[in-house]
Amino acid sequence: MLNVHLVPHTHDDVGWLKTVDQYYYGDRNNIQHAGVQYILDSVIDQLQKDPARRFIYVETAFFYRWWKQQNQSTQRIVTQLVNEGRLEFINGGWCMSDEATTHYSAVIDQMTLGLRFLNDTFGECGRPRVAWHIDPFGHAREHASIFAQMGYDGFFFGRLDYQDKARRMKTKEMEMLWRASESLTPPLADLFTGVLPNGYNPPEGFCWDQSCDDAPIRDDPDLEDYNVDEIVQKFLNAGFYKANHIIMTMGSDFQYENANLWYKNMDKLIKYVNALQAKGSKVNVLYSTPSCYLQELNLANLTWPLKTDDFFPYADDAHDFWTGYFTSRPALKLYERLSNSRLQTCNQLEVLGGPKSKSGPFGEGDSDTMSKAMGVAQHHDAVSGTEKQHVAYDYARRLATGWAHCEVLVRNSLAILSGSEAPHVFCENLNISVCPLTESSHKFSMNVYNPLGRTVSWPVRLPVNGSVYSVTDANGRAVDSQVGNVFISLKCTCYIYDMKSSCLLPLLSVRWFHCLIMCVFVLFDNHRYNASAGNNKESPQTSGAYIFRPNSSDPFVINKTAETQIVTVSSTVQEVTQWFSPWVSQVVRLYEGHRELELEWTVGPVPVADGLGKEVITRLDTDIKSSDYFYTDSNGREVLERRKDYRPTWELKQTEPVAGNYYPINSRAYIKDDKHQLTVVTDRSQGASSLYNGSLEIMLHRRLLYDDYRGVGEPLSEPGDFSDGLVARGRLLLTFTPPDTAADVHRPLAQGMVLQPLLSFQDDSYYELEHQYQAKESKTHSQPVTVNLQKLFSTLDVLGASEMSLGANQWKEDMDRLQWNAGNNYPSPWEVTLNPMEIRTFLLRVRQL
Amino acid sequence: MLNVHLVPHTHDDVGWLKTVDQYYYGDRNNIQHAGVQYILDSVIDQLQKDPARRFIYVETAFFYRWWKQQNQSTQRIVTQLVNEGRLEFINGGWCMSDEATTHYSAVIDQMTLGLRFLNDTFGECGRPRVAWHIDPFGHAREHASIFAQMGYDGFFFGRLDYQDKARRMKTKEMEMLWRASESLTPPLADLFTGVLPNGYNPPEGFCWDQSCDDAPIRDDPDLEDYNVDEIVQKFLNAGFYKANHIIMTMGSDFQYENANLWYKNMDKLIKYVNALQAKGSKVNVLYSTPSCYLQELNLANLTWPLKTDDFFPYADDAHDFWTGYFTSRPALKLYERLSNSRLQTCNQLEVLGGPKSKSGPFGEGDSDTMSKAMGVAQHHDAVSGTEKQHVAYDYARRLATGWAHCEVLVRNSLAILSGSEAPHVFCENLNISVCPLTESSHKFSMNVYNPLGRTVSWPVRLPVNGSVYSVTDANGRAVDSQVGNVFISLKCTCYIYDMKSSCLLPLLSVRWFHCLIMCVFVLFDNHRYNASAGNNKESPQTSGAYIFRPNSSDPFVINKTAETQIVTVSSTVQEVTQWFSPWVSQVVRLYEGHRELELEWTVGPVPVADGLGKEVITRLDTDIKSSDYFYTDSNGREVLERRKDYRPTWELKQTEPVAGNYYPINSRAYIKDDKHQLTVVTDRSQGASSLYNGSLEIMLHRRLLYDDYRGVGEPLSEPGDFSDGLVARGRLLLTFTPPDTAADVHRPLAQGMVLQPLLSFQDDSYYELEHQYQAKESKTHSQPVTVNLQKLFSTLDVLGASEMSLGANQWKEDMDRLQWNAGNNYPSPWEVTLNPMEIRTFLLRVRQL
Repeated sequence: MLNVHLVPHTHDDVGWLKTVDQYYYGDRNNIQHAGVQYILDSVIDQLQKDPARRFIYVETAFFYRWWKQQNQSTQRIVTQLVNEGRLEFINGGWCMSDEATTHYSAVIDQMTLGLRFLNDTFGECGRPRVAWHIDPFGHAREHASIFAQMGYDGFFFGRLDYQDKARRMKTKEMEMLWRASESLTPPLADLFTGVLPNGYNPPEGFCWDQSCDDAPIRDDPDLEDYNVDEIVQKFLNAGFYKANHIIMTMGSDFQYENANLWYKNMDKLIKYVNALQAKGSKVNVLYSTPSCYLQELNLANLTWPLKTDDFFPYADDAHDFWTGYFTSRPALKLYERLSNSRLQTCNQLEVLGGPKSKSGPFGEGDSDTMSKAMGVAQHHDAVSGTEKQHVAYDYARRLATGWAHCEVLVRNSLAILSGSEAPHVFCENLNISVCPLTESSHKFSMNVYNPLGRTVSWPVRLPVNGSVYSVTDANGRAVDSQVGNVFISLKCTCYIYDMKSSCLLPLLSVRWFHCLIMCVFVLFDNHRYNASAGNNKESPQTSGAYIFRPNSSDPFVINKTAETQIVTVSSTVQEVTQWFSPWVSQVVRLYEGHRELELEWTVGPVPVADGLGKEVITRLDTDIKSSDYFYTDSNGREVLERRKDYRPTWELKQTEPVAGNYYPINSRAYIKDDKHQLTVVTDRSQGASSLYNGSLEIMLHRRLLYDDYRGVGEPLSEPGDFSDGLVARGRLLLTFTPPDTAADVHRPLAQGMVLQPLLSFQDDSYYELEHQYQAKESKTHSQPVTVNLQKLFSTLDVLGASEMSLGANQWKEDMDRLQWNAGNNYPSPWEVTLNPMEIRTFLLRVRQL
Repeated sequence: MLNVHLVPHTHDDVGWLKTVDQYYYGDRNNIQHAGVQYILDSVIDQLQKDPARRFIYVETAFFYRWWKQQNQSTQRIVTQLVNEGRLEFINGGWCMSDEATTHYSAVIDQMTLGLRFLNDTFGECGRPRVAWHIDPFGHAREHASIFAQMGYDGFFFGRLDYQDKARRMKTKEMEMLWRASESLTPPLADLFTGVLPNGYNPPEGFCWDQSCDDAPIRDDPDLEDYNVDEIVQKFLNAGFYKANHIIMTMGSDFQYENANLWYKNMDKLIKYVNALQAKGSKVNVLYSTPSCYLQELNLANLTWPLKTDDFFPYADDAHDFWTGYFTSRPALKLYERLSNSRLQTCNQLEVLGGPKSKSGPFGEGDSDTMSKAMGVAQHHDAVSGTEKQHVAYDYARRLATGWAHCEVLVRNSLAILSGSEAPHVFCENLNISVCPLTESSHKFSMNVYNPLGRTVSWPVRLPVNGSVYSVTDANGRAVDSQVGNVFISLKCTCYIYDMKSSCLLPLLSVRWFHCLIMCVFVLFDNHRYNASAGNNKESPQTSGAYIFRPNSSDPFVINKTAETQIVTVSSTVQEVTQWFSPWVSQVVRLYEGHRELELEWTVGPVPVADGLGKEVITRLDTDIKSSDYFYTDSNGREVLERRKDYRPTWELKQTEPVAGNYYPINSRAYIKDDKHQLTVVTDRSQGASSLYNGSLEIMLHRRLLYDDYRGVGEPLSEPGDFSDGLVARGRLLLTFTPPDTAADVHRPLAQGMVLQPLLSFQDDSYYELEHQYQAKESKTHSQPVTVNLQKLFSTLDVLGASEMSLGANQWKEDMDRLQWNAGNNYPSPWEVTLNPMEIRTFLLRVRQL
């Protein structure tokens, strides 16, 4: 028997063409017909009609919201459906995260948010066993590693490079074992991975959603147009794989709003196809779920091909590389990253401040709002920058609202911790030198909260109006500082070096490093690609929110001789400002006591009056003999080797010499030879490549004039606050080191970029312990580390500890993933050892001291 | 309290942009999203969720089909919903018939088909109490009369002339008592009639169907975009009538496929609006039905304005007269009329032949298929000619299939009645002189079945290949006949005069009238209007399937001097053939023994190479002093007086001097003065007008190049079988009489046109007795007639008789319609008296003799 597993599913973006609220309620259906509340209403109704019917649900952000609005009777029905396996949660994170532009810490948070809700609501039966990333535009190895560590038995996705797919179809390698870490001992990060046969759509002709136009099954023989025989034959001819089990995704974007249409026709399909078994047919169709399907594959006890690299970049045709979104919406990408830092701070202060931090002298605050805002921001049309403009605004608004709730909590917590109720003001716009309090006050104090678990030194710049300031630390000792007038606004900036030795120490400890002088060793220059308008002879593909396609492989130099306007040399910083054009400038800074060079770039508004979209890169040219190799991180954790015009798993036919060599970077990229390594640490996700020996380029900003035909329906041309185009500003940190000590510098640098000082501490109910070095990359740090859980917190008494899966939704000892022909070796210590790249999650029972 | 009656409803065309099957199953959703099976599934589900919810269903053609596919459990649930008044049938005919282009006999048949099904299935609780014609494009008085006689308590519709509507809104005459007959004694044909406030749509902003884009009620205060207060306020501001009851249609075309969307939001609307009563609001919103609403109006015991004319023509703006569809698709209109005649024959022979007629020597036959095909053909986008071309083909195909089923039945029945099983062949295409049997055989016999209840003489023309024929009747007596070669095909035609004295007499009795010589007393000529292409300065309105709008008020004469090709004078017929152009010709015939002149017109393919759509009329100019008056029938029964540039109930501002004076004719039109009356009897529904003193014009054919923006989305340009445009052929019968004897001629003539000889007899289980003369129109015939029911049938023994409502779905004595301030006076005889225009329906218990 060939078993055809019909998997009824809906793919519900938590924002894309509409906002997450509009999708939930079915508002603005003129933009796109989609209303998730009705999908869940309808599916629950239809599942009750026949115990054979199945459904999977994926996005907990929507399910959570719907669940809250149901009465007890409906909740009981749903619980029963879950217990009976008729409704099954798959993936189960708050959203289906993007894989190219997300940071692993935010991904784990959003997964945890969703998985914990399912756990709390449905217990073990609500725990998803399969990861399901049917839509993201390429797949990161780190995501697979995270899923494996979260206890998922398998992973299914829909999109991969068209050349790769063609090859896999031919060699029957659509299903594989993905070994997703070079550091973790197999099978810790091994994940069974399947490519779905029809993306995530039903086979052609079998889409029975209200949004589809395929013919329904007309089975009344009295009527005109009886078509049962024709449909059954078409289904039998649909061209299955050769295995005796095949999965068919029966659903698509926002489908099942009227689930009756689907189920009524699938009931008939099952009935009429299986009826042919009496006549000798060997095809058996059944309602199923990905986990049931996976179970069958596992029982088959086959040997699967091994995959060790990742699935980037994604191209769906020769000139259609989805590498533009690595950089699309740079301001949103930065704001999401900044919000991540703030959420960690908020979470830490919620734990440290105790229950009163949520209801204290400054009112009611919470971290939930921010958690949920960050949860949706991880979506594959959110931080990816591939949503409509109004939706991008909505994500930003949610993050701002989240922070407003956190602010109250943080104020309460700081008041509790410091014993002072003096109000704290937060300055949101320091990156553009705006802070009303510091600009208007002649005397103010500043608290610096360091969310990191270790000491950092951090340059702080504040806009002020005076020209002479005395800066002291909490103990009254003088802090070296400098007031300058580096901006044309003539505002002055006060440089303060602040350092916390540990998040467990009292706040406001300040330390001072003396300066080290460095020389500028890199030639950096800004270029731009002009975007394809779809009018060339090879292909009509344009550059857009998703797709990067320059109209020429050679970038234009924006200005060969940058105008160097101001050079500041002081005891705390050396600074050079360069103007490449009225819309591209850069400040180069070297801070005393720091080994990294800071490039602060400002790009925009990108002019488009010449009718050309533009994609601005910064290119770093060195004499490093990197040949065709370069290195990019995966979700801010492990680093993968990249090679120009090459893919590790198939013989690449390169059709886009620039876009086809771009890869996502979430935190860093580097080039190296035997002696030197240039590492760039970024403040947000971007696209990067190395197209020449010794050269590393990073895309900073994009402004385009055409939609790229992947559904968003808008050209990516972000408006600015004061001009017709968005001005983006950001920072790159450059380090130049021997290769074998590079990680010792770039790991803490990148972590410091992710968790920025402002206000913070560590985790509450669950605590992730993480080893952040990759195996063998650092002689000193790529070693196992042992931590004593009882000594971790200075203000908490740890009463007990239980290790959990990475998503904190099951006990680690209960994790019983399907075995894929290899032994298991989980260590089970009380003193916890962390191997390189390992993240472990513990539930601690604590008592406030 | 102001009570707002929310009436959840769906308007389900039994064919329009898609065929009735495609609508039922939800096929071809790329044309229009609509699937009736799912609507009923969904509504039944949603009604069960809350006993307060209500729904009305209208089109029995769809309901019947759905009901057949339900299991017993669902049927029980539905029955309970009907019994509890939660699901209510409204209108309840097979379809919602067109009112301008239908013949009353077919309308009664389709109503009866639906009502009987409801009666048989649900008993008294399934009987509709309200007629509901929310979409037809103008309203015929005869329809109102039929509804009153069928026992309906009231009638609601959506469309009326925009000037009339504006006036009624101002004078609060949107609800009225329609006295729908000049002949029937009030209140026999009195009908409470209401114009719905929003056509049949929900108030603006309150459409919550999946097909709408209005904002849903977002009532979770935690979420963004909470909008309850705004929606409630908007509803309260929606501008109600001043009465304390108001009806709101909550639904529209094919809505409620996912009824949850509607009910979920209406539940909330009711909850939040009524919650304001606690704060002093006087608005009460409730789920309701038209009959509940009507009950409340009736209890109010008000006096309503009286309406005695009709609602034709319908215009929705100054240059937008829906008078084109009176003539659109002339071939379909003829075929529908011919099918009506065949169905009557089929029904009669089914009764006469007994059970064996359905399963006899020629196989299995039935009249149901034809009944249902005719049922959907009455729809307001079927015989109206306003459907898409592929749908028009589908209606024709259904009629053909219906006839194929009838043919078997008729063959069986004729075999039973004649005692001979010699096979009968039917010739479908006699109107274009095609009959393979007569053309190939040298010897054949012909049965003529007369479906009329009285003797007629009828000319029969058969195409033959020989030139000498001997024609005899059943008794071997010679029948006068003539073989000619009047057609350019050179086929010969054999004229036979055949007459049946009664349908109760043996078949094949033949009688012969000697000729009367008449003179041609009318100047008839063919003209055409060129259609508006929407490019003139007053309005962009084009002429289309619905709309008639010539680009000039003066028609073009197609050819001033018609070429007269052949004149045949024989003992049986005088015949003149005129060619006005290669695509317009006419044969004028005067038969021996007949007082009418026959004009057989042939129009098409209408040339459009000049870029102009054309609408061809025949204009009859006489010296009758008709002034501005002319007369048109209503659904083939009563005749209404029309006056140029005038409406009986409001002061007309005429904006379209031609189109605004067109009225539908279903069987006849006439002009008259004191001495003379010219009556034209037609073979199908057409549009007609009198624009000059003594002139009567009839539109014959239309071919247009633009859609008219009323939804059909196609220009009305019918393809022909052998050419690029449809050739239409038809007959007009002209009589010229004194006015006081005109009806004596035109009534039987029109009836003979409707029920054409070929194969036929009378009714089965219910028998409609009809008086076909209008009051006072004929001195001899406009008198009460008494019939003895026991003596009606020569082959049946009548055992008992019970009078029923006109729709045959309730006992006449049980008819208990709401009273509208007037006494009741139903006669209750055993010997049945028929007053002018009365139709009475009896259920007879019979025994085959």
